Amino acid sequence: MPRLKAPQRREQLIAVATRLFARHGYDATTTASIAEAAGVTEPILYRHFKSKQDMFVAIVRAMSAQTMQEWEELISDVGDPAERIKAVAQAVPAHIKRLSDAYHVLHGALSTSQDKKVHGVLREHYDQIEEFFCKVVVDGHKMGVFRPDLDPKSAAWQLILSGIGYAMITLNLDEVERPVVDHVIESIVRGWVK
Amino acid sequence: MPRLKAPQRREQLIAVATRLFARHGYDATTTASIAEAAGVTEPILYRHFKSKQDMFVAIVRAMSAQTMQEWEELISDVGDPAERIKAVAQAVPAHIKRLSDAYHVLHGALSTSQDKKVHGVLREHYDQIEEFFCKVVVDGHKMGVFRPDLDPKSAAWQLILSGIGYAMITLNLDEVERPVVDHVIESIVRGWVK
Repeated sequence: MPRLKAPQRREQLIAVATRLFARHGYDATTTASIAEAAGVTEPILYRHFKSKQDMFVAIVRAMSAQTMQEWEELISDVGDPAERIKAVAQAVPAHIKRLSDAYHVLHGALSTSQDKKVHGVLREHYDQIEEFFCKVVVDGHKMGVFRPDLDPKSAAWQLILSGIGYAMITLNLDEVERPVVDHVIESIVRGWVK
Repeated sequence: MPRLKAPQRREQLIAVATRLFARHGYDATTTASIAEAAGVTEPILYRHFKSKQDMFVAIVRAMSAQTMQEWEELISDVGDPAERIKAVAQAVPAHIKRLSDAYHVLHGALSTSQDKKVHGVLREHYDQIEEFFCKVVVDGHKMGVFRPDLDPKSAAWQLILSGIGYAMITLNLDEVERPVVDHVIESIVRGWVK
């Protein structure tokens, strides 16, 4: 294994940890097994992360940052706020497929962890998504696209809750069929517009 | 522990298993610990259930049956299909709170299990919920309440996905606030009506 510079090593360790947590569960994965799979010693891993928990926090933050970047790009050349919502929602199946290991880790932690630090970083993640969608809804109000009594926070959470449910079913049981996804998106936006 | 008749013993064992699976996880719970907590020997447990997996199947089936019974009662004296959807959705927070252990077990299994039998009983569960909501939507079409292009299956899945997301957040992170729940229900139904 060639020697990597610090930022690349950190990124590699996050990638390896994501894969192992997704495959064997957070609890069943040790820092020793992550170090081994990454081809480094445990002391080298500990130069980058204080603990396994610290790796989990890094995974979620990397995922949040990537999500925000993808979505900002997706809506950058879409003027109509209703179309912005559709553009992001229609890309969710591919987004979740691409980040499937990270979503396994996130939802595994959400459904099993009692840890305050884990909860803290999950809240950060959902806060960012809430803020992103709230902004689109507020823009939609200004432009007269959405009904005035549509509450931005509730609208944001309508999308977040549906997205969590979609990921839970698609990643673990059966892929929710594309026509169903498209119908659901259409219904959500219809409930928002004037 | 007094001797129970077979159906009561079975019910008691399901209740104890639900509590232990919810608290310690399915994998970390043994049939020995379930028998001990129920005050019986393991051979007595095995008279009622072939395996731990068999207990999981019984938990999900009991939960599905209870859900269907509750919801049928809820809509029995509501004529308008849009109001039926609202009545069921508005009762979801109390429903999930009441069955919180069972939902922990169900979503824990959904996010971690690779087992075919587990997947089979989860599919059964969602199929029943899909069928319940589809029927309400079809009634709504007949009565001219819902827009004709509203797809019943997609409408059912819109509710199922939102419900899974709601339970995941409320049971594990922070309770989704009641005004948000009410706004989301209002938005969903607005997207369905003519």
